[in-house]
Amino acid sequence: MNAKRTLAVMTGGGDAPGLNAVIRTIVKQGVTQLGWRVIGLEDSFDGLLETPLRIIDFDRDQVRGILTMGGTILGTTNHGDPFSFRESDGSVSDRSVEVAERLKLLGVEGLIAIGGDGSMGICSRLMKERGVPVIGVPKTIDNDIPGTEITFGFDTAAAFATEAVDRLHSTAESHERVMVLEVMGRDAGHLALASGLGGGADVILIPEIPFRWDAVLGKLMRRRAFKRHFSIVVVAEGAKPEGGSVTEHMNADGRKSHGGIGFLVADEIARRTGLETRCTVLGHLQRGGTPTPRDRVLASRMGHHAVELARRGEWGRMVAMRANRMDSVELSWLLTQTARQLSLDDDAISTARALGIVFGDEAQ
Amino acid sequence: MNAKRTLAVMTGGGDAPGLNAVIRTIVKQGVTQLGWRVIGLEDSFDGLLETPLRIIDFDRDQVRGILTMGGTILGTTNHGDPFSFRESDGSVSDRSVEVAERLKLLGVEGLIAIGGDGSMGICSRLMKERGVPVIGVPKTIDNDIPGTEITFGFDTAAAFATEAVDRLHSTAESHERVMVLEVMGRDAGHLALASGLGGGADVILIPEIPFRWDAVLGKLMRRRAFKRHFSIVVVAEGAKPEGGSVTEHMNADGRKSHGGIGFLVADEIARRTGLETRCTVLGHLQRGGTPTPRDRVLASRMGHHAVELARRGEWGRMVAMRANRMDSVELSWLLTQTARQLSLDDDAISTARALGIVFGDEAQ
Amino acid sequence: MNAKRTLAVMTGGGDAPGLNAVIRTIVKQGVTQLGWRVIGLEDSFDGLLETPLRIIDFDRDQVRGILTMGGTILGTTNHGDPFSFRESDGSVSDRSVEVAERLKLLGVEGLIAIGGDGSMGICSRLMKERGVPVIGVPKTIDNDIPGTEITFGFDTAAAFATEAVDRLHSTAESHERVMVLEVMGRDAGHLALASGLGGGADVILIPEIPFRWDAVLGKLMRRRAFKRHFSIVVVAEGAKPEGGSVTEHMNADGRKSHGGIGFLVADEIARRTGLETRCTVLGHLQRGGTPTPRDRVLASRMGHHAVELARRGEWGRMVAMRANRMDSVELSWLLTQTARQLSLDDDAISTARALGIVFGDEAQ
Amino acid sequence: MNAKRTLAVMTGGGDAPGLNAVIRTIVKQGVTQLGWRVIGLEDSFDGLLETPLRIIDFDRDQVRGILTMGGTILGTTNHGDPFSFRESDGSVSDRSVEVAERLKLLGVEGLIAIGGDGSMGICSRLMKERGVPVIGVPKTIDNDIPGTEITFGFDTAAAFATEAVDRLHSTAESHERVMVLEVMGRDAGHLALASGLGGGADVILIPEIPFRWDAVLGKLMRRRAFKRHFSIVVVAEGAKPEGGSVTEHMNADGRKSHGGIGFLVADEIARRTGLETRCTVLGHLQRGGTPTPRDRVLASRMGHHAVELARRGEWGRMVAMRANRMDSVELSWLLTQTARQLSLDDDAISTARALGIVFGDEAQ
Repeated sequence: MNAKRTLAVMTGGGDAPGLNAVIRTIVKQGVTQLGWRVIGLEDSFDGLLETPLRIIDFDRDQVRGILTMGGTILGTTNHGDPFSFRESDGSVSDRSVEVAERLKLLGVEGLIAIGGDGSMGICSRLMKERGVPVIGVPKTIDNDIPGTEITFGFDTAAAFATEAVDRLHSTAESHERVMVLEVMGRDAGHLALASGLGGGADVILIPEIPFRWDAVLGKLMRRRAFKRHFSIVVVAEGAKPEGGSVTEHMNADGRKSHGGIGFLVADEIARRTGLETRCTVLGHLQRGGTPTPRDRVLASRMGHHAVELARRGEWGRMVAMRANRMDSVELSWLLTQTARQLSLDDDAISTARALGIVFGDEAQ
Repeated sequence: MNAKRTLAVMTGGGDAPGLNAVIRTIVKQGVTQLGWRVIGLEDSFDGLLETPLRIIDFDRDQVRGILTMGGTILGTTNHGDPFSFRESDGSVSDRSVEVAERLKLLGVEGLIAIGGDGSMGICSRLMKERGVPVIGVPKTIDNDIPGTEITFGFDTAAAFATEAVDRLHSTAESHERVMVLEVMGRDAGHLALASGLGGGADVILIPEIPFRWDAVLGKLMRRRAFKRHFSIVVVAEGAKPEGGSVTEHMNADGRKSHGGIGFLVADEIARRTGLETRCTVLGHLQRGGTPTPRDRVLASRMGHHAVELARRGEWGRMVAMRANRMDSVELSWLLTQTARQLSLDDDAISTARALGIVFGDEAQ
Repeated sequence: MNAKRTLAVMTGGGDAPGLNAVIRTIVKQGVTQLGWRVIGLEDSFDGLLETPLRIIDFDRDQVRGILTMGGTILGTTNHGDPFSFRESDGSVSDRSVEVAERLKLLGVEGLIAIGGDGSMGICSRLMKERGVPVIGVPKTIDNDIPGTEITFGFDTAAAFATEAVDRLHSTAESHERVMVLEVMGRDAGHLALASGLGGGADVILIPEIPFRWDAVLGKLMRRRAFKRHFSIVVVAEGAKPEGGSVTEHMNADGRKSHGGIGFLVADEIARRTGLETRCTVLGHLQRGGTPTPRDRVLASRMGHHAVELARRGEWGRMVAMRANRMDSVELSWLLTQTARQLSLDDDAISTARALGIVFGDEAQ
Repeated sequence: MNAKRTLAVMTGGGDAPGLNAVIRTIVKQGVTQLGWRVIGLEDSFDGLLETPLRIIDFDRDQVRGILTMGGTILGTTNHGDPFSFRESDGSVSDRSVEVAERLKLLGVEGLIAIGGDGSMGICSRLMKERGVPVIGVPKTIDNDIPGTEITFGFDTAAAFATEAVDRLHSTAESHERVMVLEVMGRDAGHLALASGLGGGADVILIPEIPFRWDAVLGKLMRRRAFKRHFSIVVVAEGAKPEGGSVTEHMNADGRKSHGGIGFLVADEIARRTGLETRCTVLGHLQRGGTPTPRDRVLASRMGHHAVELARRGEWGRMVAMRANRMDSVELSWLLTQTARQLSLDDDAISTARALGIVFGDEAQ
């Protein structure tokens, strides 16, 4: 080991395009500009807890060409949270002390963790309970992390989902058909709204607005009456019919789960209107791919701000975009929050309504 | 009506990107260069069989801006084959004589039908039994129409399917995971081979090669042994395990059908290897979108050749690409053929094998 | 004419992807939701000043399918500012009174003008001097209109410029070569910064930071010394060397103008370093193309907000994005402002510096 | 050194997307499937002629992730032809004997050279005069290498050039404007024809058809008369006006050379018609970027066939696509041929003419 200041960096949770751009910025600024040492932990905390260690002692050549790459060169965990680590034999143990000790052994001054709310929670505990200084960089396709206006990966996912709506448009218009597209968004409808508005959907169903079947079906029948022989319905995976949970619906039908709300919506539309209906689930396609230029810039700015926080010793914070500027919030505050949902008075929602798009809460 | 030579044009069956480029060429050459009249039949034969007629009397302005549009500006049928036309009341009747009479009434010298094997069969009967001169332009995403080396739409679909493999790659590489992608191809594996080879898949399952589970699973386990912690499996919808049909398998499992062979393969892999496995079905996304430049050129060339055949009075033929040149084949010959499958000695297959890609027929 | 409330809409100046999305939203909300009449003026004020009038009395079908189209279905002017209108015979006259009279004749309550600073100035005069109520919607590829954080079209242009940097990267890396890319940005470096940061350039030259040759050349020579055998330089068209104007430089060389600062920079690099250097000018390619999903959403939101302002009678304002919300600013205030430049303490600039990117003001 | 059969592989000349896919296939088949040794020569012959040698002793991990990468991981030459090698001091010497000796020293059985006609010529001499067994893989953006129907990289370049035409369309349509786009193609018009036909240009100028100004200008004026207020002209860099060389024209004007035929055509159109005219030169953007799926497949097939030829000891041949199958031609035959131009009876040309596209040889 040497006397250089040393940072560790890891990525946790599902992929979001832009992860590598964050890593690249941390390494380039850390190693090249500041002369620090930057250690990458492989597969989240997994590599740190193995013997021999699986870590990368970064030099700048190791981040060449990764700006445009989806995924993460560091990999992500298979064993999960070090506080309840799934051992290979299936048992669960608390390895968090080891995490702290091994980071100390490596001379790590602090850890930059790029991850979702799960990772942020773990890191906050590591700091509070095990004394590991951490800085968080928010990552989520769903764009629902509180405290930040936007997260990288969202623009790429929204662009792909919109392209999917475009594709369905061009083929739906030739037929009499309802096309249902299920996109990500368990707790928030950011992605469904962006792709539905950007792609010109007719109906958008989001977790923030429980929908009524009559409002949805009414829109489809009105379109038919006006000789619009096709319709596009974008559904967030967390959308729910008013009053009832999706799971109940699905159990009632006795159907198994290769498909969630999207198939349910498609089946119900077909059953009640007699219209030919198709469902497509974008699934993991939304997590992959080259980050859009905007996501590369955003991810780079977040990586840079994380290094700046480390440099100033402002540990225990998560990088955040606020009023289009890089800023940060307390990790401890973050953990008191629920998912950042769409505000119902968001002007994008009123724009959608102005365009005649139905959310399922309309009076009939 | 006037004394101009008059062509009718229609599109039938599922969409394929490039349909509009064919229509555009026929109209531009027919109307502008040759001074003919070109009539578009709306929604395949449906519009022709309604009163009032739904047809387009094309002038060149009506095809402006459609070169890059997916779908078809003419729409496609909801009532199907005029020989067994599904009336609105659900009954079925033979309306083929009306088709012939109405085309005569409109002064139509001949009909250019852009469609798949279904449309080609109908057109052949219309010519033989009802005396309607027809020229066919082949259309299929699957690229399996006999007599032509390639059909438009295939390149666009293959490009999208390959992009999907690329996306799965970037996210699969960060996790230990098997990603299964189901692409079109009921009878032929052209699309699965193109996207699997172009995207760098590990396993490609196609209708031409019934697969054995041990060969597929063996490949995945070998990759795991070599520390490749992810694999990509591309499955054509018509792929089948050796000896057994998929339907039987599925029935045996008592599963319902929001997913076909892709989900079956994913389930089986997960069950037998314990690996985390995900399935994505591209479905209708493959039919939509802006045609690739190559498909636009190909579709334009085919439209032009159709007009040339009409000009020379060579009715009863289907436009075909042969040795990279526009040519044609007899419609009557076509109907004696089965779907054009991949030849097992195709060098693209041996290229895939050379790259270590498994088709499921390998000795273990 | 009828008793409906009537809005006019026009587009002025150079293209920006998203113009049609603005028009579409105004028409859909105005005509379908509010029951108003919406009149489109063709070719900016040109169509309004011709006899017969060239205007579009919009119904909702006229905006179908335009969400994804670049350009503007309304066209833009060839005769320019109605206050100094270039007549076909080359003379110039003030036609602004006619503009006001004809709008009154058409029953127009107010005009929504989508345009750049030029159009905003004209509209402000029309309101003040001729009593025409106007609302502006800002449009510029350069993203330099004051009062709004972002304008539609910028994301699309930045995405294309970044893709161009990506392309140069892949080919530059195989050779020993300096690639210079000239992008738009006469007064502001937003586009150069976004594409240079997003594409991973080595040098970014922007109007806000006059550059010194020694700083630029020093970076290139250091890369060479470190065995980086290629470099990418992104230059905004308004970038200038310190102390001297580009025009002088060019005059000194006696060169004509098929190329501006980009070629100058490339020539100078080649001359002083002996490195093989190439220049590409993106030019009008940056103005065209399908708007990105993000630009479609932004443009739709701006169109919606313009209608809301009209609805509330808030004339004399320009739609603006402020703190990620739709808002508006006084047109009269706007006209006192200069182009919105990059702030030198923008964290995107410090991110770029942290990545080792040179702006030309660095100490050597 | 070991007793394994050993192949060397190199890339020469300008980039073409797909080079890395060829290398990847050769390495994967050679190393993994056949158990051979594959050595990559860096920077064409440059690395082989340096001390210490710059070569890559490939294992399969070194070609991971390169399938989708533009450029070449092997680099290309700065010193050029080993028969007339440009030394660092500027002198020229024949280093071809050293090439042969060093390959022998490395135990190389034969060399697979991926390159254009220049590289093919060098390799043929190396085989004939220095006894180095070689196999060529054709590479050219221009698609003009004789003996093969198609070369990889062409589809990618054509797709990008077509996208450029699309972009110019969307912005040209809003203005009264002639847009000139200069694309690659010194000796052949394949790229200009593909992008002009695929993008819907109005005029295509190619080396195979010397153009007359009156035919070009006539088309533009006819469009204007028909109220088409914009036109797109695609020009291959090797296009020439009838009777006169471009160079003479340019000298006559006394203009310098930041722009070739494209600017000349644009200037002439502006001068003679008074129409606003713009020129864009795609330049190196055409050489970069991720290869299209089709190019990846084609390049992989070519790499595979090269290994098959090596395996069978069929040295002295160049891989070629003939009637859609992989085949090969004699290198010695190749060198007697001139560039493969478009055949004037190519149906793509007659398709273009049927669409009203002008090539400049039309009677007025």
